[in-house]
Amino acid sequence: MKNVKSAVCIACGAEYEATPNITTCPKCGGILDIQYDYEYIRSQLTPEQLKARSDHSMWRYREFLPVEGASKVPKLRVGWSPFYEADRLAEMIGIKKLYIKDDGINPTGSLKDRASAMAVVKAEEAGVDTIACSSTGNAASSLAGNAAAAGFKTVIFVPERAPKGKVAQLMMFGATVISVKGTYEETFRLSADAISRWGWYNRNAAINPYLMEGKKTVSFEIAEQLDFKMTDYVAVSVGDGCTISGVWKGFKDLYAAGFIDKLPRLVSVQAEGCCPLNRSIAEGKDWEPMEENTIADSIAVGVPRNPDKALNAIRESNGIVVNVSDEEIYESMRLLGRTSGVFAEPAGATGTAGVKKAVLQGLIPKDATVVSLVTGSGLKDVANAIKAAGEPIAIAPDMNLLLEAFEKMNLK
Amino acid sequence: MKNVKSAVCIACGAEYEATPNITTCPKCGGILDIQYDYEYIRSQLTPEQLKARSDHSMWRYREFLPVEGASKVPKLRVGWSPFYEADRLAEMIGIKKLYIKDDGINPTGSLKDRASAMAVVKAEEAGVDTIACSSTGNAASSLAGNAAAAGFKTVIFVPERAPKGKVAQLMMFGATVISVKGTYEETFRLSADAISRWGWYNRNAAINPYLMEGKKTVSFEIAEQLDFKMTDYVAVSVGDGCTISGVWKGFKDLYAAGFIDKLPRLVSVQAEGCCPLNRSIAEGKDWEPMEENTIADSIAVGVPRNPDKALNAIRESNGIVVNVSDEEIYESMRLLGRTSGVFAEPAGATGTAGVKKAVLQGLIPKDATVVSLVTGSGLKDVANAIKAAGEPIAIAPDMNLLLEAFEKMNLK
Repeated sequence: MKNVKSAVCIACGAEYEATPNITTCPKCGGILDIQYDYEYIRSQLTPEQLKARSDHSMWRYREFLPVEGASKVPKLRVGWSPFYEADRLAEMIGIKKLYIKDDGINPTGSLKDRASAMAVVKAEEAGVDTIACSSTGNAASSLAGNAAAAGFKTVIFVPERAPKGKVAQLMMFGATVISVKGTYEETFRLSADAISRWGWYNRNAAINPYLMEGKKTVSFEIAEQLDFKMTDYVAVSVGDGCTISGVWKGFKDLYAAGFIDKLPRLVSVQAEGCCPLNRSIAEGKDWEPMEENTIADSIAVGVPRNPDKALNAIRESNGIVVNVSDEEIYESMRLLGRTSGVFAEPAGATGTAGVKKAVLQGLIPKDATVVSLVTGSGLKDVANAIKAAGEPIAIAPDMNLLLEAFEKMNLK
Repeated sequence: MKNVKSAVCIACGAEYEATPNITTCPKCGGILDIQYDYEYIRSQLTPEQLKARSDHSMWRYREFLPVEGASKVPKLRVGWSPFYEADRLAEMIGIKKLYIKDDGINPTGSLKDRASAMAVVKAEEAGVDTIACSSTGNAASSLAGNAAAAGFKTVIFVPERAPKGKVAQLMMFGATVISVKGTYEETFRLSADAISRWGWYNRNAAINPYLMEGKKTVSFEIAEQLDFKMTDYVAVSVGDGCTISGVWKGFKDLYAAGFIDKLPRLVSVQAEGCCPLNRSIAEGKDWEPMEENTIADSIAVGVPRNPDKALNAIRESNGIVVNVSDEEIYESMRLLGRTSGVFAEPAGATGTAGVKKAVLQGLIPKDATVVSLVTGSGLKDVANAIKAAGEPIAIAPDMNLLLEAFEKMNLK
């Protein structure tokens, strides 16, 4: 990989060759970070060349990605998700300009497809035929789908609270699924033991440094869809910490390669009932575990597996932190649907809930420009969608009953 | 609209001006069909010009669409769905070449988004602020989503059996939803009465001739994704009859304008428990109503609203008809997921189930090339996905229990 220099431990600074199956630092257990040769990348790709490309998937950014020249791009079409100028929503929130990046429009319905597509390529490079992970759901189904399309076997560990839709989806993709009667933390530990026992390829995002490199493609797309003129803020919902780290890495890559001349400030949005990273930033203390009290299951992570990279990202970007209640998340789901036709799962709508709250609290000025990232589709968690959306008018097929119902509801 | 000549009744041949709010033939009640000036279209667009376009949505085919020059394209990004060469699935089915067109990857998760996007444009042209329809679910949620993104109000009638996920989705988009305690037929009739009473824009596909013109864009994409070298067959699941009619119209348009030099044969796939159109073709008799006995709710239409166009399409294309059981539909859902990473709802997997069966029965020769259209996402109907996919292995977080479970299942 001519564009990659090495993998460096973010804890102790040790440097390693970026082989396909590196995980955490052998010396100190810290998380590794892939380092690039930006001068080389710049010599290989210009913004103009990029714009002319016909590949509308995450792989259009190959020069920025840690994959061997000979590696084939997976078939499943991941990335190049829609990017909307959300004028009506911006007006309702009271902000100058708001964009929605809808990453629920990915093959398995979430941003995690970007990481899983990368895992498939690296597992192929590593010569392994089985990929495993633990996940609250989206990483799992995305791994199952991307691996199935590429002919890999998968073993997936989910905590028992994972929504049925997500589990059904990954069963459909042929994964061997272990539903663990315990917390996410216990699920993660069992998966780690099994992975080391059987030598499967590890798709746990906080362990495998390549996955974040897949996730960062969402930032490449945001920048390109903005014609490389960055907004002031980018809002992201935060659980494990891997997504916000990937988002930040993407912008830093583009900045280092001269594709953008300004870095956005990150808005880290967590659920009030589970916000260990935001609490750490707000109180200026080390992070501490929290309970997992939120309906936004994808970010209900009391013991984040990637705290250091996430905290670094928020701080480096001069970011802000906002915590939102479950009711604010439901409201944000309704707002996204009703103003923009975007149907988000709770964690997917959390970023936008944070933008609204931050504007209200004066943390984001009214003349700012903001991108809000929707990380997953609302179809993934129908039970919460029903709670957020309410029930339809139920009547027998009779016009008089319809007239009555409309009158009662003050319609027409 | 310089590209549109008129709207012609397919029953009595009467010709009308193609105004935005035409519905059925005022003389005989027949369904209208939009007629184009293909010479004009050919003078405006070549395949080469098309390929160079950066708009990757259904609107890249604007020259073939019945919209006014001044009309704005809706914001929600509909179309340009993924197209996969499904080699492993082709091998399992025993056919030379199989492609999957995954239209579940649309903003609201189904092909119906193409029709709803068109409805939004025509409602705008007609100067109406409310759009209404009846639907088994997908047309409803797609209308709600597309209308919400464009700022229209919607009133939507669904039969009570519509899956909860679909209903939650359209509630989230802010639609006024009427859940009718009755059949699809009764739902349809109540919606028709209400639409004529209140003058809403009519998004019932068999009434409004423009919707099929939106749906036909899926064929444009299939052809372009095949580099205009058409396959021998295109398989489509059939309920109301509107989708297969739209698919056929698209190919005929391209053929008339010289973009393709061969028309595919259609494979009309219905559920055994509800196959009035296929039965009509197979027995060479007029179609007759059937009960709605299938888990594939999106095509459970005992009284199809668009039988004439659908039957014409199958006959004109020298098409074949195949009926599949619910178990074959479940199997097809598993096959699509496990070989291709495509998660389809039952009706979405029905076309592929039909291809498998038709190959097995010798109706499609083994050396044929086939496209199978997946019409909706599996996340729309989780209950059936769970039935098709099975249950995960549930254990407490303990390696010994994992070893035990694996041993029992003969894994590792």
